Amino acid sequence: MRVNSLLDELANIGTNRSGGYDRLAWTRADSECREWFISQAQSRGLDVEIDRNGNLWAWLNPTLPGKALVVGSHLDSVPRGGGFDGPLGIASAFAALDQLNDMLPSRPIAIVAFVDEEGGRFGIACAGSRLMTGALSSASFLALTDRENVSTAEAMRAAGQSPDLVGLDAERLACIGEFIELHVEQGHLPTSSGVDGLTVDEPLGLATAIWPHGRWRVDFEGQQNHAGATRMDDRQDPMLGLAQAILDVHQMAVSRGILGTVGKVSVSPGAVNAIPGTASLWIDARGSEEIMVLQAMAEFGRNALRESWTPSTSFSAPLLEAISRAIGRDLPLLPSGAGHDAGVLALAGIPTAMILVRNPSGISHAPEEYAEDDDCESGVLALAAVIRDRSA
Amino acid sequence: MRVNSLLDELANIGTNRSGGYDRLAWTRADSECREWFISQAQSRGLDVEIDRNGNLWAWLNPTLPGKALVVGSHLDSVPRGGGFDGPLGIASAFAALDQLNDMLPSRPIAIVAFVDEEGGRFGIACAGSRLMTGALSSASFLALTDRENVSTAEAMRAAGQSPDLVGLDAERLACIGEFIELHVEQGHLPTSSGVDGLTVDEPLGLATAIWPHGRWRVDFEGQQNHAGATRMDDRQDPMLGLAQAILDVHQMAVSRGILGTVGKVSVSPGAVNAIPGTASLWIDARGSEEIMVLQAMAEFGRNALRESWTPSTSFSAPLLEAISRAIGRDLPLLPSGAGHDAGVLALAGIPTAMILVRNPSGISHAPEEYAEDDDCESGVLALAAVIRDRSA
Repeated sequence: MRVNSLLDELANIGTNRSGGYDRLAWTRADSECREWFISQAQSRGLDVEIDRNGNLWAWLNPTLPGKALVVGSHLDSVPRGGGFDGPLGIASAFAALDQLNDMLPSRPIAIVAFVDEEGGRFGIACAGSRLMTGALSSASFLALTDRENVSTAEAMRAAGQSPDLVGLDAERLACIGEFIELHVEQGHLPTSSGVDGLTVDEPLGLATAIWPHGRWRVDFEGQQNHAGATRMDDRQDPMLGLAQAILDVHQMAVSRGILGTVGKVSVSPGAVNAIPGTASLWIDARGSEEIMVLQAMAEFGRNALRESWTPSTSFSAPLLEAISRAIGRDLPLLPSGAGHDAGVLALAGIPTAMILVRNPSGISHAPEEYAEDDDCESGVLALAAVIRDRSA
Repeated sequence: MRVNSLLDELANIGTNRSGGYDRLAWTRADSECREWFISQAQSRGLDVEIDRNGNLWAWLNPTLPGKALVVGSHLDSVPRGGGFDGPLGIASAFAALDQLNDMLPSRPIAIVAFVDEEGGRFGIACAGSRLMTGALSSASFLALTDRENVSTAEAMRAAGQSPDLVGLDAERLACIGEFIELHVEQGHLPTSSGVDGLTVDEPLGLATAIWPHGRWRVDFEGQQNHAGATRMDDRQDPMLGLAQAILDVHQMAVSRGILGTVGKVSVSPGAVNAIPGTASLWIDARGSEEIMVLQAMAEFGRNALRESWTPSTSFSAPLLEAISRAIGRDLPLLPSGAGHDAGVLALAGIPTAMILVRNPSGISHAPEEYAEDDDCESGVLALAAVIRDRSA
């Protein structure tokens, strides 16, 4: 099947009224996407498996000797996210296999859909792959709750999965020979050609590395009080510290040449007529060099609590070279500012690469995220060529 | 019964784990408070009535001629609110009636619990009283939804009430001769004695007026995008406008001598790794003079959308004088910065007064809201004296 036909089958799952998709992990929409994955796998005669962490696997020739070539991505989205981030990699993998009907593989091939990549519900990105590699402990994962105070274990059970065995899956890791994730381009970061983003001449690129990135939380304490009865002099209003910090994060990022974002805040009690008692914000900070990000956050201060940190991650140069060879041309090289399951697997020592598909809007994690049908088809051809090259 | 014993009966309803009470309108906790009201009324032989807007009434001698003397307040709270704002007025009314067993009233007396005074769920304060007086139209009320997109009609039905007849209740208004609301002091606003708030010498005060107050909403539009893949130069981040506006509201209030608060914000999609697409804040602005508030908001600009406005409201001077006379001493006079159902009834032309009970913490709409038992008892004695004076 063509990749755009496959994506069309997901088009009505988890649509947000104001555009885009809500497919947060272990919600109804996420489950429907997973059911689609299973039916796609079964219709191609692939063996479907759900691992102990809830990641979905579709196996071709699992009994062949050798370590598996794994391709895939994820199905979940951020709140009101786009339709390509994640699903494009899965749909392209199925479409690529369809082009390889004549191939006799020499090793097992798997398509994987990692669970909860975005962390849009529980706040920790790449939970499924991080649990598998041990980068996220089962205890840390099981302690997470969403905004409605639903725990990860409750969410998994509600989706028909068991949380009882989540955690490091060393046996599975040992079976993965290489992992290739195809993904829509996000933003227009500078490429090796010296331009910003993929260009009209070339719909595909190769990610060489994932920028180091982290999340920090800052809490501001005040005294909850009545908005109409408390003199301005008598106030301890945590919103003022929050507001100044939002402006400072932006200024810090601009002046230090990194990316700094406040995308989430929480104000309690959040009533129009109450001075809040507490206010919190979350900072997402990334950059080309670890030291730039960490120095900036140290200068920012304010007892920012680091909730996660992922060091700079390089993808496998030999694998990137093999991809270019299989495709028959040199693709532009560019960094990924976004984190990915591919980065998690690379950190675990698995040879890993990412193929990026041009996104003319430059927008991701939003309804405007976009890739042309022809560009997606180029991605499928590239993926098929690589799979043939690595496993024929 | 003593008023503190009555309040104790409410102590376990709607408790918030981190202190204070969540008793938002038409929630389970609100319904439990209303059941308590009904049982208190019935145990005293009062006739219970729920009006078309969901306000609760307990009538003593409803068939006597003349217009009713109505006392009362409300039972709902802001999120994580205190235990006195509202319930103290209701409990004091029941306790005052208990002191008047020997009285033969010359007119009907009613205790009222207005529904949804705080507006903590649907954003419009004093919904129950405003619907009754016609200040809030049924269409406007029925168009409101809470954070979970539950409509007011759905909320009322879930609480066993009918939304079918909400709106102006002219017949009922015509039966109310006077309304007196006893309420815990909020903040330490300047009194007629030239000091800030009620003092060690006097636990009671009389509110002469409610400050004019309004609510405005400001929306900031941006372009939702990926926090890790969008260059700082390429961003349209609505959080920056939001943050600057929060600081500006505070500065505006201080420099113009009014009260200005941002207690609620909304950020979409609210993910750590997404630049928001939209961000909104709500401004609560009040002051001693209408013109001061309106001029400040005009200068603030930013297309702030006025969601509600309540002009300055004076309470009935003759009724305030009658209260002092009945109590036998002159009480300190002070404004109320907070809005109240009493203000709504005063605007509708009903002679109205408020008795305030000393709050040593100066804090309201928060768990620290407080009044001493002895001070509450003084409030009951005052209320009993007034009821006797106005209806014996």
